[in-house]
Amino acid sequence: MIIGLVGFGKVSQNLVRFIQSENITFITSAQNRSSKTAENIKMSNVEILDDFKQVALKSDILISANSPGSALDVAEKYGRYVRGIYVDLNNISPDTTFKISEYVENLVDGAIIGKIDSKKPLLYLSGEKSDELLFLNDYIETVKVSDRIGDASILKLLRSTYTKTVSALLIESYGLAEKYGLGEEFFNTLNITEGNDFAEKSLSRIHNTLKSKKRKSEELEEIINYFDGEDLIMVKAAFEKLSR
Amino acid sequence: MIIGLVGFGKVSQNLVRFIQSENITFITSAQNRSSKTAENIKMSNVEILDDFKQVALKSDILISANSPGSALDVAEKYGRYVRGIYVDLNNISPDTTFKISEYVENLVDGAIIGKIDSKKPLLYLSGEKSDELLFLNDYIETVKVSDRIGDASILKLLRSTYTKTVSALLIESYGLAEKYGLGEEFFNTLNITEGNDFAEKSLSRIHNTLKSKKRKSEELEEIINYFDGEDLIMVKAAFEKLSR
Repeated sequence: MIIGLVGFGKVSQNLVRFIQSENITFITSAQNRSSKTAENIKMSNVEILDDFKQVALKSDILISANSPGSALDVAEKYGRYVRGIYVDLNNISPDTTFKISEYVENLVDGAIIGKIDSKKPLLYLSGEKSDELLFLNDYIETVKVSDRIGDASILKLLRSTYTKTVSALLIESYGLAEKYGLGEEFFNTLNITEGNDFAEKSLSRIHNTLKSKKRKSEELEEIINYFDGEDLIMVKAAFEKLSR
Repeated sequence: MIIGLVGFGKVSQNLVRFIQSENITFITSAQNRSSKTAENIKMSNVEILDDFKQVALKSDILISANSPGSALDVAEKYGRYVRGIYVDLNNISPDTTFKISEYVENLVDGAIIGKIDSKKPLLYLSGEKSDELLFLNDYIETVKVSDRIGDASILKLLRSTYTKTVSALLIESYGLAEKYGLGEEFFNTLNITEGNDFAEKSLSRIHNTLKSKKRKSEELEEIINYFDGEDLIMVKAAFEKLSR
Protein backbone atom coordinates (compact mmCIF):
# COMPACT_ATOMS: atom_id res chain seq x y z
CA MET A 1 0.00 0.00 0.00
CA ILE A 2 1.19 3.48 -0.83
CA ILE A 3 0.44 6.40 1.48
CA GLY A 4 1.10 9.82 0.01
CA LEU A 5 1.79 12.84 2.15
CA VAL A 6 1.09 16.39 1.08
CA GLY A 7 2.98 18.41 3.63
CA PHE A 8 5.82 17.10 5.75
CA GLY A 9 5.48 18.90 9.05
CA LYS A 10 5.02 17.45 12.53
CA VAL A 11 1.94 15.43 11.62
CA SER A 12 3.46 13.68 8.62
CA GLN A 13 6.79 13.10 10.35
CA ASN A 14 5.09 11.45 13.29
CA LEU A 15 2.77 9.38 11.11
CA VAL A 16 5.81 7.97 9.32
CA ARG A 17 7.36 7.22 12.70
CA PHE A 18 4.18 5.50 14.03
CA ILE A 19 3.22 3.58 10.92
CA GLN A 20 6.05 1.22 10.20
CA SER A 21 5.18 -1.79 8.12
CA GLU A 22 6.76 -3.79 5.30
CA ASN A 23 3.54 -3.43 3.37
CA ILE A 24 3.36 0.34 3.52
CA THR A 25 5.42 2.76 1.47
CA PHE A 26 5.27 6.48 2.13
CA ILE A 27 5.72 8.90 -0.72
CA THR A 28 5.90 12.68 -0.82
CA SER A 29 7.50 15.49 -2.75
CA ALA A 30 9.80 18.38 -1.90
CA GLN A 31 8.13 20.53 -4.56
CA ASN A 32 7.90 24.17 -3.40
CA ARG A 33 8.92 23.16 0.10
CA SER A 34 11.46 24.91 2.31
CA SER A 35 15.00 23.54 2.42
CA LYS A 36 14.38 22.54 6.03
CA THR A 37 11.37 20.44 5.05
CA ALA A 38 13.33 18.93 2.17
CA GLU A 39 16.02 18.00 4.69
CA ASN A 40 13.43 16.40 6.99
CA ILE A 41 12.04 14.37 4.11
CA LYS A 42 15.51 13.09 3.16
CA MET A 43 16.11 11.96 6.73
CA SER A 44 12.86 9.98 6.88
CA ASN A 45 11.97 6.66 5.37
CA VAL A 46 9.95 8.22 2.57
CA GLU A 47 10.21 8.06 -1.21
CA ILE A 48 10.51 11.42 -2.90
CA LEU A 49 8.68 12.13 -6.15
CA ASP A 50 9.09 15.15 -8.40
CA ASP A 51 5.76 16.79 -7.69
CA PHE A 52 2.54 16.37 -5.68
CA LYS A 53 0.52 15.51 -8.76
CA GLN A 54 2.63 12.35 -9.06
CA VAL A 55 2.17 11.72 -5.33
CA ALA A 56 -1.61 12.04 -5.64
CA LEU A 57 -1.77 9.79 -8.70
CA LYS A 58 0.23 7.00 -7.10
CA SER A 59 -1.31 7.00 -3.61
CA ASP A 60 -3.83 4.51 -2.30
CA ILE A 61 -4.33 6.96 0.55
CA LEU A 62 -3.41 10.61 0.21
CA ILE A 63 -3.00 12.50 3.46
CA SER A 64 -3.22 16.28 3.43
CA ALA A 65 -1.39 17.61 6.49
CA ASN A 66 -0.48 21.22 5.95
CA SER A 67 -1.20 24.54 7.51
CA PRO A 68 -4.95 25.13 8.02
CA GLY A 69 -4.77 27.98 5.50
CA SER A 70 -3.63 25.77 2.63
CA ALA A 71 -5.96 22.79 3.21
CA LEU A 72 -8.56 23.93 0.70
CA ASP A 73 -5.93 24.85 -1.88
CA VAL A 74 -4.33 21.39 -1.67
CA ALA A 75 -7.73 19.74 -2.09
CA GLU A 76 -8.51 21.91 -5.12
CA LYS A 77 -5.13 21.22 -6.78
CA TYR A 78 -4.59 17.51 -6.12
CA GLY A 79 -7.92 16.07 -4.99
CA ARG A 80 -8.99 15.18 -8.52
CA TYR A 81 -5.94 12.91 -9.08
CA VAL A 82 -6.59 10.66 -6.11
CA ARG A 83 -8.08 7.32 -7.02
CA GLY A 84 -8.03 5.96 -3.49
CA ILE A 85 -8.93 7.80 -0.31
CA TYR A 86 -8.20 11.43 0.48
CA VAL A 87 -7.73 12.12 4.19
CA ASP A 88 -7.73 15.68 5.44
CA LEU A 89 -5.78 15.94 8.70
CA ASN A 90 -5.48 19.69 8.81
CA ASN A 91 -6.71 21.55 11.85
CA ILE A 92 -9.57 23.20 9.98
CA SER A 93 -13.14 24.17 10.77
CA PRO A 94 -15.98 21.85 9.70
CA ASP A 95 -16.98 24.49 7.14
CA THR A 96 -13.65 24.11 5.36
CA THR A 97 -14.06 20.33 5.49
CA PHE A 98 -17.41 20.68 3.72
CA LYS A 99 -15.81 22.88 1.06
CA ILE A 100 -13.05 20.32 0.55
CA SER A 101 -15.66 17.63 -0.02
CA GLU A 102 -16.71 19.51 -3.15
CA TYR A 103 -13.31 18.94 -4.73
CA VAL A 104 -12.57 15.49 -3.44
CA GLU A 105 -14.19 12.10 -3.89
CA ASN A 106 -13.71 9.46 -1.21
CA LEU A 107 -12.95 12.09 1.38
CA VAL A 108 -12.27 11.09 4.97
CA ASP A 109 -12.52 13.85 7.56
CA GLY A 110 -9.71 13.40 10.05
CA ALA A 111 -8.90 15.14 13.31
CA ILE A 112 -6.01 14.55 15.63
CA ILE A 113 -6.97 14.71 19.29
CA GLY A 114 -4.10 15.57 21.59
CA LYS A 115 -0.66 16.39 20.29
CA ILE A 116 0.59 14.21 17.47
CA ASP A 117 4.01 13.94 19.17
CA SER A 118 2.52 13.00 22.54
CA LYS A 119 2.57 9.46 23.89
CA LYS A 120 -0.99 8.67 22.92
CA PRO A 121 -2.37 10.80 20.13
CA LEU A 122 -5.75 9.80 18.82
CA LEU A 123 -7.01 9.88 15.28
CA TYR A 124 -10.70 10.65 14.73
CA LEU A 125 -12.19 9.84 11.37
CA SER A 126 -15.57 10.40 9.82
CA GLY A 127 -17.06 9.72 6.43
CA GLU A 128 -18.13 6.50 4.76
CA LYS A 129 -14.64 5.59 3.67
CA SER A 130 -13.31 5.69 7.25
CA ASP A 131 -13.77 1.94 7.58
CA GLU A 132 -10.99 1.36 5.12
CA LEU A 133 -8.61 3.27 7.35
CA LEU A 134 -9.29 1.42 10.56
CA PHE A 135 -6.21 -0.75 9.92
CA LEU A 136 -4.33 2.34 11.20
CA ASN A 137 -5.40 1.21 14.66
CA ASP A 138 -2.39 -1.09 14.60
CA TYR A 139 -0.16 1.97 14.73
CA ILE A 140 -2.11 4.85 16.23
CA GLU A 141 -5.40 4.77 18.13
CA THR A 142 -8.03 5.38 15.47
CA VAL A 143 -11.73 5.94 16.05
CA LYS A 144 -14.45 6.18 13.45
CA VAL A 145 -16.92 8.82 14.64
CA SER A 146 -19.62 8.38 12.02
CA ASP A 147 -20.32 8.13 8.30
CA ARG A 148 -20.83 11.88 8.06
CA ILE A 149 -18.12 14.16 6.69
CA GLY A 150 -17.66 16.98 9.20
CA ASP A 151 -18.33 14.97 12.34
CA ALA A 152 -14.65 14.39 13.14
CA SER A 153 -13.96 18.13 12.84
CA ILE A 154 -17.09 19.06 14.79
CA LEU A 155 -16.21 16.62 17.55
CA LYS A 156 -12.78 18.15 17.84
CA LEU A 157 -14.41 21.57 18.25
CA LEU A 158 -16.86 20.20 20.83
CA ARG A 159 -13.98 18.72 22.76
CA SER A 160 -12.19 22.09 22.70
CA THR A 161 -15.38 23.77 23.88
CA TYR A 162 -15.07 21.87 27.10
CA THR A 163 -11.30 21.73 27.63
CA LYS A 164 -10.53 25.36 26.77
CA THR A 165 -13.43 26.68 28.85
CA VAL A 166 -12.39 24.55 31.81
CA SER A 167 -8.91 26.04 31.49
CA ALA A 168 -10.37 29.54 31.69
CA LEU A 169 -12.39 28.48 34.74
CA LEU A 170 -9.29 27.02 36.39
CA ILE A 171 -7.39 30.24 35.81
CA GLU A 172 -10.22 32.15 37.46
CA SER A 173 -10.97 29.89 40.43
CA TYR A 174 -7.40 28.91 41.23
CA GLY A 175 -6.38 32.56 40.92
CA LEU A 176 -9.09 33.45 43.42
CA ALA A 177 -8.01 30.68 45.80
CA GLU A 178 -4.40 31.86 45.59
CA LYS A 179 -5.50 35.38 46.50
CA TYR A 180 -6.95 33.97 49.71
CA GLY A 181 -3.84 31.89 50.37
CA LEU A 182 -5.82 28.70 49.76
CA GLY A 183 -4.46 27.55 46.39
CA GLU A 184 -3.13 24.23 47.63
CA GLU A 185 -6.23 23.56 49.75
CA PHE A 186 -8.41 24.38 46.73
CA PHE A 187 -6.83 21.56 44.76
CA ASN A 188 -6.87 19.21 47.74
CA THR A 189 -10.60 19.62 48.18
CA LEU A 190 -11.22 19.15 44.46
CA ASN A 191 -8.98 16.09 44.20
CA ILE A 192 -11.60 14.26 46.26
CA THR A 193 -14.24 14.40 43.55
CA GLU A 194 -12.21 15.21 40.44
CA GLY A 195 -9.62 12.46 40.72
CA ASN A 196 -6.18 12.23 42.26
CA ASP A 197 -4.34 13.83 39.40
CA PHE A 198 -6.64 16.84 39.25
CA ALA A 199 -4.15 19.31 40.75
CA GLU A 200 -1.31 18.24 38.47
CA LYS A 201 -3.49 18.18 35.37
CA SER A 202 -5.06 21.53 36.21
CA LEU A 203 -1.78 23.30 36.88
CA SER A 204 -0.50 22.06 33.55
CA ARG A 205 -3.68 23.34 31.85
CA ILE A 206 -3.34 26.72 33.49
CA HIS A 207 0.30 26.90 32.50
CA ASN A 208 -0.29 25.87 28.88
CA THR A 209 -3.23 28.19 28.47
CA LEU A 210 -1.47 31.23 29.89
CA LYS A 211 1.60 30.44 27.77
CA SER A 212 -0.42 30.60 24.53
CA LYS A 213 -3.32 32.77 25.63
CA LYS A 214 -3.63 34.50 22.27
CA ARG A 215 -3.86 31.29 20.24
CA LYS A 216 -6.29 29.72 22.73
CA SER A 217 -8.57 32.73 22.62
CA GLU A 218 -8.45 32.66 18.81
CA GLU A 219 -9.45 29.00 18.90
CA LEU A 220 -12.34 29.88 21.19
CA GLU A 221 -13.35 32.60 18.76
CA GLU A 222 -13.40 30.05 15.93
CA ILE A 223 -15.66 27.82 18.01
CA ILE A 224 -18.02 30.72 18.71
CA ASN A 225 -18.08 31.63 15.03
CA TYR A 226 -18.66 28.08 13.90
CA PHE A 227 -21.56 27.52 16.30
CA ASP A 228 -22.90 30.96 15.51
CA GLY A 229 -26.44 31.34 16.75
CA GLU A 230 -26.06 28.85 19.58
CA ASP A 231 -26.29 30.25 23.07
CA LEU A 232 -22.67 29.78 24.13
CA ILE A 233 -22.56 31.77 27.36
CA MET A 234 -19.75 29.77 28.94
CA VAL A 235 -17.54 29.64 25.86
CA LYS A 236 -17.98 33.36 25.28
CA ALA A 237 -16.98 34.03 28.88
CA ALA A 238 -13.88 31.87 28.42
CA PHE A 239 -13.04 33.85 25.28
CA GLU A 240 -13.45 37.08 27.22
CA LYS A 241 -11.32 35.72 30.08
CA LEU A 242 -8.46 34.77 27.77
CA SER A 243 -8.69 37.87 25.59
CA ARG A 244 -7.92 40.24 28.42
CA MET B 1 -16.80 14.05 76.54
CA ILE B 2 -20.09 15.78 75.94
CA ILE B 3 -21.05 17.04 72.50
CA GLY B 4 -24.05 19.37 72.41
CA LEU B 5 -26.16 19.80 69.33
CA VAL B 6 -28.16 22.93 68.57
CA GLY B 7 -30.41 21.78 65.79
CA PHE B 8 -31.26 18.21 65.01
CA GLY B 9 -31.61 18.06 61.25
CA LYS B 10 -29.71 15.95 58.75
CA VAL B 11 -26.27 17.11 59.88
CA SER B 12 -26.78 16.37 63.56
CA GLN B 13 -28.54 13.08 62.90
CA ASN B 14 -25.70 11.88 60.73
CA LEU B 15 -23.02 13.07 63.14
CA VAL B 16 -24.65 11.02 65.90
CA ARG B 17 -24.67 8.07 63.53
CA PHE B 18 -21.00 8.50 62.55
CA ILE B 19 -19.58 9.32 65.94
CA GLN B 20 -20.24 6.34 68.12
CA SER B 21 -17.99 5.98 71.15
CA GLU B 22 -18.33 4.97 74.79
CA ASN B 23 -16.54 8.16 75.74
CA ILE B 24 -18.85 10.51 73.91
CA THR B 25 -22.31 11.55 75.01
CA PHE B 26 -24.53 13.64 72.77
CA ILE B 27 -26.96 16.09 74.29
CA THR B 28 -29.58 18.33 72.75
CA SER B 29 -32.95 19.88 73.49
CA ALA B 30 -36.38 19.77 71.88
CA GLN B 31 -37.03 23.38 72.99
CA ASN B 32 -39.04 25.22 70.31
CA ARG B 33 -38.51 22.38 67.86
CA SER B 34 -41.10 20.82 65.60
CA SER B 35 -42.80 17.63 66.75
CA LYS B 36 -41.06 15.81 63.92
CA THR B 37 -37.64 16.93 65.16
CA ALA B 38 -38.62 15.98 68.73
CA GLU B 39 -39.52 12.55 67.40
CA ASN B 40 -36.18 12.25 65.60
CA ILE B 41 -34.34 13.16 68.78
CA LYS B 42 -36.19 10.54 70.79
CA MET B 43 -35.29 7.88 68.26
CA SER B 44 -31.57 8.73 68.42
CA ASN B 45 -29.01 7.93 71.06
CA VAL B 46 -29.04 11.45 72.47
CA GLU B 47 -29.78 12.87 75.92
CA ILE B 48 -32.52 15.47 75.97
CA LEU B 49 -32.20 18.56 78.18
CA ASP B 50 -34.88 21.14 78.92
CA ASP B 51 -33.38 23.98 76.95
CA PHE B 52 -30.40 24.96 74.79
CA LYS B 53 -28.89 27.12 77.49
CA GLN B 54 -28.41 23.94 79.54
CA VAL B 55 -27.03 22.19 76.47
CA ALA B 56 -24.52 25.01 75.89
CA LEU B 57 -23.45 25.08 79.56
CA LYS B 58 -22.79 21.34 79.75
CA SER B 59 -21.07 20.80 76.39
CA ASP B 60 -17.36 20.34 75.87
CA ILE B 61 -18.09 20.89 72.20
CA LEU B 62 -21.22 22.70 71.05
CA ILE B 63 -22.18 22.16 67.45
CA SER B 64 -24.50 24.64 65.77
CA ALA B 65 -26.18 22.92 62.84
CA ASN B 66 -29.33 24.78 61.86
CA SER B 67 -30.68 26.58 58.91
CA PRO B 68 -28.22 29.16 57.53
CA GLY B 69 -30.65 31.91 58.50
CA SER B 70 -30.55 31.09 62.22
CA ALA B 71 -26.80 30.52 62.59
CA LEU B 72 -26.08 34.04 63.80
CA ASP B 73 -29.06 34.00 66.15
CA VAL B 74 -27.95 30.76 67.79
CA ALA B 75 -24.45 32.15 68.28
CA GLU B 76 -25.80 35.33 69.83
CA LYS B 77 -28.12 33.45 72.20
CA TYR B 78 -25.99 30.52 73.36
CA GLY B 79 -22.39 31.32 72.41
CA ARG B 80 -21.68 33.00 75.70
CA TYR B 81 -22.49 29.89 77.76
CA VAL B 82 -20.03 27.61 76.02
CA ARG B 83 -16.89 26.92 78.03
CA GLY B 84 -15.44 24.51 75.51
CA ILE B 85 -15.41 24.81 71.76
CA TYR B 86 -18.19 26.21 69.58
CA VAL B 87 -18.33 24.70 66.12
CA ASP B 88 -20.44 26.32 63.46
CA LEU B 89 -21.46 23.78 60.83
CA ASN B 90 -24.12 25.83 59.11
CA ASN B 91 -23.90 26.44 55.40
CA ILE B 92 -23.20 30.15 55.81
CA SER B 93 -21.09 32.72 54.03
CA PRO B 94 -17.69 33.62 55.47
CA ASP B 95 -19.13 37.03 56.38
CA THR B 96 -21.63 35.41 58.73
CA THR B 97 -18.84 33.31 60.20
CA PHE B 98 -16.92 36.49 61.00
CA LYS B 99 -19.99 37.98 62.66
CA ILE B 100 -20.45 34.84 64.73
CA SER B 101 -16.86 35.12 65.94
CA GLU B 102 -17.87 38.37 67.67
CA TYR B 103 -20.29 36.49 69.93
CA VAL B 104 -18.33 33.31 70.46
CA GLU B 105 -15.00 32.48 72.04
CA ASN B 106 -13.16 29.36 70.93
CA LEU B 107 -14.98 29.32 67.65
CA VAL B 108 -14.19 26.69 65.06
CA ASP B 109 -15.36 27.39 61.52
CA GLY B 110 -16.68 24.19 60.03
CA ALA B 111 -17.84 23.28 56.55
CA ILE B 112 -19.17 20.00 55.29
CA ILE B 113 -17.93 19.11 51.84
CA GLY B 114 -20.20 16.77 49.95
CA LYS B 115 -23.48 15.58 51.34
CA ILE B 116 -23.47 14.66 55.03
CA ASP B 117 -25.50 11.53 54.25
CA SER B 118 -23.20 10.42 51.44
CA LYS B 119 -20.67 7.63 51.81
CA LYS B 120 -17.71 9.90 52.35
CA PRO B 121 -18.58 13.34 53.64
CA LEU B 122 -15.67 15.51 54.61
CA LEU B 123 -15.42 17.95 57.48
CA TYR B 124 -13.32 21.06 56.95
CA LEU B 125 -12.30 23.05 60.00
CA SER B 126 -10.46 26.28 60.51
CA GLY B 127 -9.51 28.33 63.53
CA GLU B 128 -6.89 27.80 66.20
CA LYS B 129 -9.05 25.42 68.21
CA SER B 130 -9.48 23.05 65.25
CA ASP B 131 -6.61 20.91 66.52
CA GLU B 132 -8.72 19.82 69.46
CA LEU B 133 -11.33 18.43 67.07
CA LEU B 134 -9.03 16.33 64.95
CA PHE B 135 -10.00 13.27 67.00
CA LEU B 136 -13.18 13.37 64.87
CA ASN B 137 -11.03 11.85 62.13
CA ASP B 138 -11.73 8.49 63.76
CA TYR B 139 -15.36 8.85 62.69
CA ILE B 140 -15.55 11.23 59.73
CA GLU B 141 -12.75 12.49 57.50
CA THR B 142 -11.69 15.76 59.11
CA VAL B 143 -9.24 18.28 57.67
CA LYS B 144 -7.87 21.36 59.36
CA VAL B 145 -7.59 24.07 56.72
CA SER B 146 -5.78 26.72 58.72
CA ASP B 147 -5.76 28.66 61.98
CA ARG B 148 -7.87 31.41 60.44
CA ILE B 149 -11.60 31.63 61.12
CA GLY B 150 -13.35 31.95 57.78
CA ASP B 151 -10.98 29.77 55.77
CA ALA B 152 -13.16 26.66 55.97
CA SER B 153 -16.18 28.63 54.73
CA ILE B 154 -14.14 30.38 52.04
CA LEU B 155 -12.70 27.08 50.85
CA LYS B 156 -16.18 25.67 50.55
CA LEU B 157 -17.15 28.64 48.37
CA LEU B 158 -14.01 28.27 46.27
CA ARG B 159 -14.82 24.63 45.75
CA SER B 160 -18.34 25.56 44.64
CA THR B 161 -16.90 28.17 42.31
CA TYR B 162 -15.30 25.37 40.36
CA THR B 163 -17.90 22.60 40.62
CA LYS B 164 -20.99 24.70 39.92
CA THR B 165 -19.35 26.50 37.00
CA VAL B 166 -18.19 23.21 35.52
CA SER B 167 -21.78 22.00 35.75
CA ALA B 168 -22.97 25.02 33.77
CA LEU B 169 -20.25 24.35 31.20
CA LEU B 170 -21.27 20.70 30.94
CA ILE B 171 -24.88 21.69 30.36
CA GLU B 172 -23.76 23.99 27.57
CA SER B 173 -21.19 21.79 25.84
CA TYR B 174 -23.04 18.50 26.17
CA GLY B 175 -26.22 20.22 25.02
CA LEU B 176 -24.37 21.44 21.95
CA ALA B 177 -22.92 17.98 21.25
CA GLU B 178 -26.39 16.44 21.56
CA LYS B 179 -27.71 18.92 19.01
CA TYR B 180 -25.14 17.59 16.55
CA GLY B 181 -25.96 14.00 17.44
CA LEU B 182 -22.53 13.61 19.02
CA GLY B 183 -23.38 13.47 22.74
CA GLU B 184 -21.97 10.02 23.34
CA GLU B 185 -18.89 10.70 21.22
CA PHE B 186 -18.37 13.95 23.13
CA PHE B 187 -18.03 12.06 26.39
CA ASN B 188 -15.93 9.32 24.79
CA THR B 189 -13.37 11.82 23.58
CA LEU B 190 -13.27 13.57 26.95
CA ASN B 191 -12.97 10.33 28.91
CA ILE B 192 -9.47 10.01 27.43
CA THR B 193 -8.12 13.02 29.28
CA GLU B 194 -10.69 13.54 32.04
CA GLY B 195 -10.75 10.04 33.47
CA ASN B 196 -12.84 6.97 32.80
CA ASP B 197 -15.78 8.01 34.96
CA PHE B 198 -16.08 11.43 33.34
CA ALA B 199 -19.25 10.67 31.39
CA GLU B 200 -21.04 9.15 34.37
CA LYS B 201 -19.96 11.92 36.75
CA SER B 202 -20.83 14.64 34.25
CA LEU B 203 -24.29 13.29 33.47
CA SER B 204 -25.03 13.16 37.18
CA ARG B 205 -23.80 16.77 37.54
CA ILE B 206 -25.97 17.91 34.67
CA HIS B 207 -28.95 16.07 36.12
CA ASN B 208 -28.48 17.41 39.66
CA THR B 209 -27.91 20.95 38.47
CA LEU B 210 -30.95 21.04 36.21
CA LYS B 211 -33.06 19.49 38.97
CA SER B 212 -32.24 22.31 41.39
CA LYS B 213 -31.36 25.06 38.95
CA LYS B 214 -32.83 27.82 41.09
CA ARG B 215 -30.94 26.87 44.24
CA LYS B 216 -27.68 26.40 42.32
CA SER B 217 -28.00 29.79 40.69
CA GLU B 218 -28.70 31.35 44.10
CA GLU B 219 -25.56 29.71 45.44
CA LEU B 220 -23.61 31.12 42.52
CA GLU B 221 -25.06 34.53 43.28
CA GLU B 222 -23.85 34.24 46.88
CA ILE B 223 -20.37 33.42 45.62
CA ILE B 224 -20.41 36.43 43.30
CA ASN B 225 -21.61 38.66 46.13
CA TYR B 226 -19.04 37.36 48.57
CA PHE B 227 -16.12 37.83 46.19
CA ASP B 228 -17.54 41.19 45.14
CA GLY B 229 -14.95 43.19 43.21
CA GLU B 230 -13.10 40.15 41.93
CA ASP B 231 -13.20 39.63 38.21
CA LEU B 232 -15.39 36.53 38.13
CA ILE B 233 -16.20 36.26 34.43
CA MET B 234 -16.70 32.50 34.42
CA VAL B 235 -18.79 32.32 37.58
CA LYS B 236 -21.00 35.15 36.38
CA ALA B 237 -21.53 33.34 33.09
CA ALA B 238 -22.49 30.18 35.00
CA PHE B 239 -24.96 32.23 37.04
CA GLU B 240 -26.43 33.64 33.83
CA LYS B 241 -26.58 30.16 32.31
CA LEU B 242 -28.49 28.72 35.26
CA SER B 243 -30.73 31.74 35.76
CA ARG B 244 -32.32 31.46 32.33
